[in-house]
Amino acid sequence: MNGEDRGQANRTVSKGTVDDRAVRPAASIGAGSDLLQLDPHDAATGGLSGWLAGRLRRAIADGRLPVGSRLPPTRLLAAELRVSRGVVTEAYRRLTEDGHVVGRGRGGTTVVAAPVTAAAPAAPDTPAMPAASDASAGLFSGTPGTGIFDAVRAAGARIDLSPGVPELAAFPRGAWVRTERAVLAELPASALGYADPRGTPELRRAAADWLARNRGVRAHPDEVIVVAGTAQALGLAAQVLRADGIARVAVEDPGALGSRQHLEHWGIDTPPVPVDFRGVRVDALRATGAPAVLLTPAHQFPTGVVLDGARRRELMRWAGGDGGLVVEDDYDAEHRYDRPPVPALRSMLPERVLYAGSVSKLLAPALRTGWVLAPPALRDALVDAKRFADLGNPVLPQLVLARLMESGELERHLRLIRGRHRRRRDAMIAAIGARLPGAEVHGAAAGLHLMITFDAGFADADLADAALARGVKTQPLSWHRRRPGPPGLVLGYALNTPALIVEGIALIAEALATVRR
Amino acid sequence: MNGEDRGQANRTVSKGTVDDRAVRPAASIGAGSDLLQLDPHDAATGGLSGWLAGRLRRAIADGRLPVGSRLPPTRLLAAELRVSRGVVTEAYRRLTEDGHVVGRGRGGTTVVAAPVTAAAPAAPDTPAMPAASDASAGLFSGTPGTGIFDAVRAAGARIDLSPGVPELAAFPRGAWVRTERAVLAELPASALGYADPRGTPELRRAAADWLARNRGVRAHPDEVIVVAGTAQALGLAAQVLRADGIARVAVEDPGALGSRQHLEHWGIDTPPVPVDFRGVRVDALRATGAPAVLLTPAHQFPTGVVLDGARRRELMRWAGGDGGLVVEDDYDAEHRYDRPPVPALRSMLPERVLYAGSVSKLLAPALRTGWVLAPPALRDALVDAKRFADLGNPVLPQLVLARLMESGELERHLRLIRGRHRRRRDAMIAAIGARLPGAEVHGAAAGLHLMITFDAGFADADLADAALARGVKTQPLSWHRRRPGPPGLVLGYALNTPALIVEGIALIAEALATVRR
Repeated sequence: MNGEDRGQANRTVSKGTVDDRAVRPAASIGAGSDLLQLDPHDAATGGLSGWLAGRLRRAIADGRLPVGSRLPPTRLLAAELRVSRGVVTEAYRRLTEDGHVVGRGRGGTTVVAAPVTAAAPAAPDTPAMPAASDASAGLFSGTPGTGIFDAVRAAGARIDLSPGVPELAAFPRGAWVRTERAVLAELPASALGYADPRGTPELRRAAADWLARNRGVRAHPDEVIVVAGTAQALGLAAQVLRADGIARVAVEDPGALGSRQHLEHWGIDTPPVPVDFRGVRVDALRATGAPAVLLTPAHQFPTGVVLDGARRRELMRWAGGDGGLVVEDDYDAEHRYDRPPVPALRSMLPERVLYAGSVSKLLAPALRTGWVLAPPALRDALVDAKRFADLGNPVLPQLVLARLMESGELERHLRLIRGRHRRRRDAMIAAIGARLPGAEVHGAAAGLHLMITFDAGFADADLADAALARGVKTQPLSWHRRRPGPPGLVLGYALNTPALIVEGIALIAEALATVRR
Repeated sequence: MNGEDRGQANRTVSKGTVDDRAVRPAASIGAGSDLLQLDPHDAATGGLSGWLAGRLRRAIADGRLPVGSRLPPTRLLAAELRVSRGVVTEAYRRLTEDGHVVGRGRGGTTVVAAPVTAAAPAAPDTPAMPAASDASAGLFSGTPGTGIFDAVRAAGARIDLSPGVPELAAFPRGAWVRTERAVLAELPASALGYADPRGTPELRRAAADWLARNRGVRAHPDEVIVVAGTAQALGLAAQVLRADGIARVAVEDPGALGSRQHLEHWGIDTPPVPVDFRGVRVDALRATGAPAVLLTPAHQFPTGVVLDGARRRELMRWAGGDGGLVVEDDYDAEHRYDRPPVPALRSMLPERVLYAGSVSKLLAPALRTGWVLAPPALRDALVDAKRFADLGNPVLPQLVLARLMESGELERHLRLIRGRHRRRRDAMIAAIGARLPGAEVHGAAAGLHLMITFDAGFADADLADAALARGVKTQPLSWHRRRPGPPGLVLGYALNTPALIVEGIALIAEALATVRR
C-alpha cells in the first residue's frame, strides 16, 4: 500500500461495459484512433507530426482525451495510422513540451492538463431556476414557490424597491480592504486552518459588545455563535427544535414569507398568529398551542409595528411561566428614525429567547454573517448544528468585521446610512402622499422599508406585476399574508436616490390605474 | 400602524410577573431607586448632580439600566432621593450630552447607548466544548464524539502533524488582498445584496474550468454549485438523499471519521466497506445492499490507495447498471508527486456521481469554499438545500477566488506548495525509516498525509496521547477504522518544516517506546 500503487489507476476502461451514453472514454483511447477521427490524409504535406499533435491537442481540449487518460503506445498508433513511428514520437514530444502530456517510460504517455481553450460543454438540460427573461410576466401571481426570491432577484428592473436591503452603494469598500490587509498582515498561519465552528473569538467578542451597546442585550462572548446570516440561524434553530420534539413554530401574520419558507423547508409547521397595531396577539399565540414562536418584535415585518410594553409582558409570561420559546429575528433594529431604540426581547428573558441578528441590514447581505444567542439549554445542540452545517463561517471576513465593529467604523457607517435612509424614506412618504392618495403608510418610524395598504378592489400581485412591467420591483403584501386582508405593497427605500424613489412611486401609480377597476 | 406606535414599547415591565431570576428590570427603573442603590449621602458635598449622573452611568454600563429602558420621571426620582428636581434634571442633561440617554418630551428619558467600558458579563455555565487545558490527557482514547476535532484543534501542540491541511504559511496573502481590492473597485453595488444561492457566475465558471484542466471533468458552469467546503457538501448530499428515500450510504473502512460523523449527523446509516490495496472492494459494497457510497477514489483517506482501473470499471457497473450512487470526495487530488493524475470518477459517469471538491487543501480550510457537481436528477433538490442552508456562500471571497483561479495564480500557488510538500514528505519518510524502523508507510505518492502502521501490540490512541504529551499532534488510525486492524497513525506533513518533521517523528518514536510492551 505504498508508492507502488501508481499506474494502476491508468489502465484502460473499456467502453460498453455499462450504458454507452453514460461512460466516456476516460482512461485510454486504446486502439481507437477512429474515435478521435484521425486521418493522415487531412495533414498538409510534410507536416504529419504537427498535424497529429494538433489533433490530439483538440481531443484533449474537448474532453475526448480527458486528464488522466493514456495515449496509445507509439508503435500501435503508428501502425494504425500507417505512418512511421517517428511521426507519433515527435507529436507526443510536442505535447510533452506544451505540458499537456507526461511520458512515464513503460507507464505510457498520460494526459495531465487540458488546453485552457477547451470549448465549454453544453448547458445542463434542466435549469434549476427560471431564466431571467421569463421572469417579468406574472411573476408575482400564484402561490410563491421556494425559488421565488431567486426568480424576483433575477428579474431585471430599473428601480428596485424590494425591502430588506440597506444602501449598498455606501458599503465601506476602502475600510474593508484596508482592514483585511491589516488582518492578513498579523494573522498567524494556523488561523487559516480549520477553526472553531462557533466563530472566531474576535467576532464573538465584537458581537457581544455590539449587542450590549445597541440592543440592550448582555451576553458573554462564549454565548455568541457566528452564523451565515439570519437564514442560517432559522435553519439551525429549526433543526435543534425538531430534535427537541418541537415541530410547530407559530409565525406572525402578516409575517415574512421568506422566514416561513425557511422554517417549512426544515419540516416545521407554522401556524399563523395575527398582528395588530400593538404587535403580535399573545392570546392568539396561546390559542395555537404552539410551543414556540418566531417574532420580529423591534420592527415587525412587514407591518413595522413595535411590540408594545403590555404585549411584551404578556409574551414573557407565556415564555417564562408557560415554557414557551421565542425565536427573535432582530433583523433591522439598528435602523430607527423617529423613535428611541427598543431593547431586544432577549434582554428580558435570556433563558427562553433564541436571538438572531446579522449584518445583512447593516452592511450587506452578501457578507452572509450574523450571530445567534441560544437559550442555555439549546446551546450545545446549536453548536453541533452549526458544526455539521459547514464547520463554521469563513475566518477572514469574520476578522475584518470584528475590527470594523470594535474600531467604531461600523457605528460610523450606521450613522451615515441612517441619515441617507431617512431622507429616502421621507422622499418615499412624500411621493406616496402626492401620487398614491388612497394609500395608507405603515411602520415607517424604523427599518429599511414601509408598507402601504389600499382599500380593497384589486389583487396586489397584479399591481406588483404591473409595476415590474414598468421597471419597478416591489413585493406584494399578500405574499406575506395568510389570512385575507386589504391589498398592499412592501417597499424598500434604502437602495435608491430620492429622485428614483419619486419616479418609482409615480410608475406604481400608473400601474395602479391599470389594475384598479 | 404608522409612526404613532412609538413610545409604546417603553412602558414599564413590572418585576415579579414571572420568575424573578429570569426577568431583568428591562424597561424602567420605575420607583426603584433602591434597586440602583442610590443614596445621596454618598455624594461629595455640592456635587449631587455629578454624583447622580455617575451612578446612573454605572447602572447603564453594567446592564441594570439596559438600552431602551426609561429613566424615572425627574419629579419622582427627586422626591424619592429627597433632592431638588434641578439636581435630577442636571444629571439627566449630562447623560444626554454624553449620548447615553435621549429626552423624548412627555415620552420620558430613554437610555440609548451604554458606555463601552461595560464590564463583561459572566461566562455561561455550560461551555459547549472542553477547555483547551483539559484537552491533552487521554484525548484520543475512548470513542470519539462529535466535538472531537474541535477538542483536538484546541489542544496545544508544538508540532502539528494532523492530516488534511496544506502549507498554510504559503497562503498568497498579498495576491488575495490585491485581488480583493480589484474586485471591490469594479463591483456594482447590487452585487452586495442577496445573491444566487448556487454561487456567483464567476466562481462557477472558474470551478468548471479548473475541473476540466485538473480533474478531467467536463461540466458546464450551470452545473456547479458553490458550497461551504466538503463538509457542507456532505450535509447537503445527505439531506437530498434522505428526501429521495436513501438513508444508507456505505463508507470506506478505513475511512475518514469526520466524513462519517457528518453523514451520521444527518441521519444517514453508514455501513462499512473494506478497502484493500486496489481501493474499495466493490463486491463488498454490493453485499451491503446500500444504494449509495461515499468514496475518496483519487487518494483514499487514510490509506492513500488509488482506486485502480478494474475496480473503477466494477464500480461503474454497480452505479450504471445497478443504479448505485457515488458521492465522490475529491479532497486532495490536486496534490501528487510520483504518479500522474487520476481522473475523477465524475468524468466517467456524470449521471451517477455527486462530485465534491474544495479549496481547503489547495489554499486554506478557513476559506470554507468548495463546489459540488450533482447528478442531474438531484440538482434542483441540491440547490434548494443550499438555499435553505444559508442563501449561498459569501460573495466577496467567491469573486476573489474566481480571479485567482482564472488568472493562473492558484495553479502557480499549487506548483509552489507541491514542491515544498514533496520535500516535507520526503523528510518525513526518511525520518520514519530512521526512527521508526518497524513502521510501514502507506499512500505517500499523493496528498498531504501518509499513513504508518505497526505490528500489533499496543493501542494507537495511547500512542497519539503519548505523542501529544510530547507536543506532537497526530491522528490514531483506529479513529478511522471500523473493523479491527493493526495500530497506526495518520500523519500530515504539509504544515511543518523538514526540521520540525524530523523532530516530530523522533518524539513519536519516544512516545512509542512508552506504549509498546
